[in-house]
Amino acid sequence: MDHEIPRKMKVAVLNEPYDIEIKEVNVPELGPHDVLVQMLAVGVCGSDVHYYAHGSVGEFVVEAPLILGHECAGKVAAVGSDVTHFKPGDRVAVEPGVPCGTCEYCKTGKYNLCPDVVFLATPPVDGAFTEYLKHPEDYLFHIPDTLSYEQATLNEPLSVGIQACRRANIQPGSSVVIMGMGPVGLMTVVAAKAFGATQIIVSDMEQNRLDEALKLGATTTINVKDEDVNQRINELTQQHGVDYAIETAGNQIALRSALAALKNGGTLAAVGLAQEADNPLNIPFITNHEINLVGIFRYANTYDTGIQILSHTDADLNSMFTHQYPLSETKAAMERARTDKSGSLKVIVYPNGIEAAKL
Amino acid sequence: MDHEIPRKMKVAVLNEPYDIEIKEVNVPELGPHDVLVQMLAVGVCGSDVHYYAHGSVGEFVVEAPLILGHECAGKVAAVGSDVTHFKPGDRVAVEPGVPCGTCEYCKTGKYNLCPDVVFLATPPVDGAFTEYLKHPEDYLFHIPDTLSYEQATLNEPLSVGIQACRRANIQPGSSVVIMGMGPVGLMTVVAAKAFGATQIIVSDMEQNRLDEALKLGATTTINVKDEDVNQRINELTQQHGVDYAIETAGNQIALRSALAALKNGGTLAAVGLAQEADNPLNIPFITNHEINLVGIFRYANTYDTGIQILSHTDADLNSMFTHQYPLSETKAAMERARTDKSGSLKVIVYPNGIEAAKL
Amino acid sequence: MDHEIPRKMKVAVLNEPYDIEIKEVNVPELGPHDVLVQMLAVGVCGSDVHYYAHGSVGEFVVEAPLILGHECAGKVAAVGSDVTHFKPGDRVAVEPGVPCGTCEYCKTGKYNLCPDVVFLATPPVDGAFTEYLKHPEDYLFHIPDTLSYEQATLNEPLSVGIQACRRANIQPGSSVVIMGMGPVGLMTVVAAKAFGATQIIVSDMEQNRLDEALKLGATTTINVKDEDVNQRINELTQQHGVDYAIETAGNQIALRSALAALKNGGTLAAVGLAQEADNPLNIPFITNHEINLVGIFRYANTYDTGIQILSHTDADLNSMFTHQYPLSETKAAMERARTDKSGSLKVIVYPNGIEAAKL
Amino acid sequence: MDHEIPRKMKVAVLNEPYDIEIKEVNVPELGPHDVLVQMLAVGVCGSDVHYYAHGSVGEFVVEAPLILGHECAGKVAAVGSDVTHFKPGDRVAVEPGVPCGTCEYCKTGKYNLCPDVVFLATPPVDGAFTEYLKHPEDYLFHIPDTLSYEQATLNEPLSVGIQACRRANIQPGSSVVIMGMGPVGLMTVVAAKAFGATQIIVSDMEQNRLDEALKLGATTTINVKDEDVNQRINELTQQHGVDYAIETAGNQIALRSALAALKNGGTLAAVGLAQEADNPLNIPFITNHEINLVGIFRYANTYDTGIQILSHTDADLNSMFTHQYPLSETKAAMERARTDKSGSLKVIVYPNGIEAAKL
Repeated sequence: MDHEIPRKMKVAVLNEPYDIEIKEVNVPELGPHDVLVQMLAVGVCGSDVHYYAHGSVGEFVVEAPLILGHECAGKVAAVGSDVTHFKPGDRVAVEPGVPCGTCEYCKTGKYNLCPDVVFLATPPVDGAFTEYLKHPEDYLFHIPDTLSYEQATLNEPLSVGIQACRRANIQPGSSVVIMGMGPVGLMTVVAAKAFGATQIIVSDMEQNRLDEALKLGATTTINVKDEDVNQRINELTQQHGVDYAIETAGNQIALRSALAALKNGGTLAAVGLAQEADNPLNIPFITNHEINLVGIFRYANTYDTGIQILSHTDADLNSMFTHQYPLSETKAAMERARTDKSGSLKVIVYPNGIEAAKL
Repeated sequence: MDHEIPRKMKVAVLNEPYDIEIKEVNVPELGPHDVLVQMLAVGVCGSDVHYYAHGSVGEFVVEAPLILGHECAGKVAAVGSDVTHFKPGDRVAVEPGVPCGTCEYCKTGKYNLCPDVVFLATPPVDGAFTEYLKHPEDYLFHIPDTLSYEQATLNEPLSVGIQACRRANIQPGSSVVIMGMGPVGLMTVVAAKAFGATQIIVSDMEQNRLDEALKLGATTTINVKDEDVNQRINELTQQHGVDYAIETAGNQIALRSALAALKNGGTLAAVGLAQEADNPLNIPFITNHEINLVGIFRYANTYDTGIQILSHTDADLNSMFTHQYPLSETKAAMERARTDKSGSLKVIVYPNGIEAAKL
Repeated sequence: MDHEIPRKMKVAVLNEPYDIEIKEVNVPELGPHDVLVQMLAVGVCGSDVHYYAHGSVGEFVVEAPLILGHECAGKVAAVGSDVTHFKPGDRVAVEPGVPCGTCEYCKTGKYNLCPDVVFLATPPVDGAFTEYLKHPEDYLFHIPDTLSYEQATLNEPLSVGIQACRRANIQPGSSVVIMGMGPVGLMTVVAAKAFGATQIIVSDMEQNRLDEALKLGATTTINVKDEDVNQRINELTQQHGVDYAIETAGNQIALRSALAALKNGGTLAAVGLAQEADNPLNIPFITNHEINLVGIFRYANTYDTGIQILSHTDADLNSMFTHQYPLSETKAAMERARTDKSGSLKVIVYPNGIEAAKL
Repeated sequence: MDHEIPRKMKVAVLNEPYDIEIKEVNVPELGPHDVLVQMLAVGVCGSDVHYYAHGSVGEFVVEAPLILGHECAGKVAAVGSDVTHFKPGDRVAVEPGVPCGTCEYCKTGKYNLCPDVVFLATPPVDGAFTEYLKHPEDYLFHIPDTLSYEQATLNEPLSVGIQACRRANIQPGSSVVIMGMGPVGLMTVVAAKAFGATQIIVSDMEQNRLDEALKLGATTTINVKDEDVNQRINELTQQHGVDYAIETAGNQIALRSALAALKNGGTLAAVGLAQEADNPLNIPFITNHEINLVGIFRYANTYDTGIQILSHTDADLNSMFTHQYPLSETKAAMERARTDKSGSLKVIVYPNGIEAAKL
């Protein structure tokens, strides 16, 4: 280990909407299977921003001060007595959800559905805007030296994309349309390419995001402000439709377009969190064309796969990182992500400073 | 062969809604791979009734006189020059849809999605209310002596149930709710039991259909006029929900109930033809619980399986057959099916007389 | 709870081959998630007999005195402080293997492959020939009142059959041949029937086992002492071969016959533990016919399914139980199972007496 | 169409082993669904060489003069009256096997198992060493202008690799070992990369083939003359073994190594045609580790996928083409492929001259 572990550490706490305070707290004590990770890069997620601005996401409500941040990577600072796979100095990505391991869903490999999962930055569980994070070793993953800490934080949104591609069963040589080019949508482009899709059509209304999609592997972009998505997809596919559609925007209109874009027997993955309970869907289209619709909720068993994909992709990952902030400016990072949708892609907070992440 | 093939035969033709005429036409000539089947039992399907009363089903419109009927079985009367698997006298079930065999869907085993399928009693293709039917040998199936012709006609609606159970991937020991106990729903009960489901909950608003479901293998019935379906399912499953839900009624409310009945990771098969294009669906429920929704359109590769299931089930199949008519009374058969929903289940037309089907 | 838990309990310990001693030991103390189960019925498994006679099974060697028995059921006597799903008096089946819950195999739903599994009666882990067994609640399963304790012990060999049927992906209406009618083979008959197989051909050289198979759902028996298996299967399938073959005997000749019995694209499940490392296999047959061969090792996520199957089967399960012994006669039970292959099927030991299992 | 179709054409006929004669025959007449393809490039396959040298492959024996060649591409010269998807001048790849379209295997999407398949250059069906080939339109595939005719011929061996990757269910981010770097093995490297495998280990005893594998996407090569394959794989995978192994050499030792290279739950695809009927296989390894073994026979539904893969790969495909011959030197082409295993990779015959393939 290359430095002493201090007793105290700084954290960025959300006291109430728009109120983030930098505090000093005790460094947590480790149980036998725990690892203490020096946090070196933490991506700001849309759900972080939502908690920051609204105090809740869906049924999850912030009731006490909460540390946000769950897209994170860092360096092992110390390990518990029974930890066997990690040692101080190891570079790691952190899978933020820790399931129970014994319920029906955990036993069958669908641990993302575990009702007792403990998930970073989901109330009341604190997250990663902290100098040090305690995490069980089974949900840490070695990252190669060729992968930067910032790149490793992308494994979290990429994991959602992998889950979508897996559940949609995307096959090499296929065509995919991905609706919504926020960070999850963008990382789904990377995932779809890794699954072998050779026609990757994307849509959004922000041109900077569409431009970014091209850097990550998209083959065609459609700006929904300028074009009719389904008419364009029909042209691009000689009226056949695409094999797969993935909706990541949580938008009713996008969902309907995604469904209508499919060929016979095609599959629609619904990733985005819809605002409304009821969304009008063309059921006769689903039955007459034997469509498959799969819901996506987080991910399971994606972290090793994601690290492999990030390490081997020829996508320009670094173009994702538009803004950088130290922990002391976490509020500024949240504001950037909240207000600058046409200028920012991924905002990174460096809990131990920007320099430390370069080492 | 046990009788001469005449030159002429009787058929029941729908000239326009409510107008069915018995005509005499030429017995069709056989191509080298065709078989001439003496029709011995033909079930009346809801789609037959819909064409009879409305002249159309969805986008399919009767533009010229049409022979209805597609749930059928009979005895081989003659075979074309290259037919190898059948000989006169063989007892057969008729798979009514004949796909092209060479398109993308046919090549991948999903021939129910073939855009060029020729399907009995779907305009402009004539159907089975005829003394003799010409059909290619590849879509005929031997039936054992233990299976009556009437029972063999059930293979058509059962095939829809098999397709639903296959695409939903129903596993032994699982729980299923089936909404709608029309003939397809009832045969889906038989299918679900054959797939090993051990808790089969069914719902409908007609008590005679719910009673019939119990004879076919349902474990619990819910009359939606008397009970809240989802509350009852919650009680029956200790608040966990069911593994699978199958909607066969084409009813918005049933579809929403079916979705809400599912446990985490559960699968909903949409079989019923919805009346409206847009149906409100709880998309957040689908994403948060990683639900799978599969559309069902007819069936592929189900006929051999269906004959095995019908031959081995301990369901009381004969209780399905509530009314019998000779070909000359085809209109009465249609009226019975159209008007007597609380009294009739399966109405059978016997194109060669009721006695002939007993031989 | 209906009785006091004593401090001491009796156990049957294997000191060395053929030497089983009844000892009194302390009743184990419970951790917060543990359940104390009063053992009411324990089936004697072939592996128990092998340890008893040889002191080892494959790479597993008995190095210290060991309590055997892992096919077991009983009644909850006491529960740890954090147990939520069980209370004293509950009737339960015991899944004997407890995996780590956090390795790659556990996380992906294949916990039978967990390298750190703790499995009853596998050295150095003690088993179920004891008055009371301590077991974590997550690997206990409620059994309905309609299922006897003896029947519940069958869930263990049945689970192997379920694993085989799942991995072979047995479909309704299919044909299966099962080689070897020991208890695992016999329970695989029950499993195959629950998966909807309608032609279940079985083979063995002991007539009593073949007779038993018929009571459990087999449709045809072949005594390999009297008949050529493959010739008979060819006749039974009109030279097409069967869809699935399951080898449970661990016998080279049976494995080759099982492979040769398959049709194009068929699947062979290898369940039996082969004696030799190298077994000659017809690889050109496997490639030319695109055969699938799946190895089976224990089971995962089968206990709930198995209880459903046992509760709903019309198989004559009780005909399996040929011999009964109290704990004090465990050695006699082992000798019966070891020496009486043509007379015994399942030998049951009752650690709390035969009467207690009836209550 | 850019030229007149002549009445006569040249073909290269194998009269008996080692005797290839250039003959002039009539250009075939087209049925309504047939297409006449001007053959522009034909790869020499190992099976062609085997027929050339031995007069048979396995059970297939050349009994009359036969035209070899089945890895082929060309330009449409004329179309039958009912052809809708092609017109003269279209550039096409030819799928050499034409199945019946109506048998059980065809109906279920496994048309490679069709017992009545008509396959180019498999006795008694003539192949592609001809100036013009008649082929049904359903088994022709458009190729993009960016793909050369030579590259398009690779779709045939690539299809075997795709079939292997599909049946093994290769997932993104996984590790694969491929044994045997003949053309099928080399194209399987391209396939495995397209399926997202990120660690692709290959073995052979010819260094030129291993060097070529690196140009196509392999990450590690093992020359079995110099190294112990399994020891090396263990080192490369930190003793865990690989996720998938594909044997393409038809060699017993390679097959055993491939099996031993697998991790728990891993999958072995057997592609190579074994010489012997019986091959010793470690069955206890298969059961204890729940291995899957899948046989591979040709391919189904791979041609569109293969064209997508060939069009998007960054593999150096042209390095495969080591030797070029006009039709008149077909015998020299066969001799080259037969005798120069350390110098040749893919030998191409140009039935209409080398220049024509450039247009």
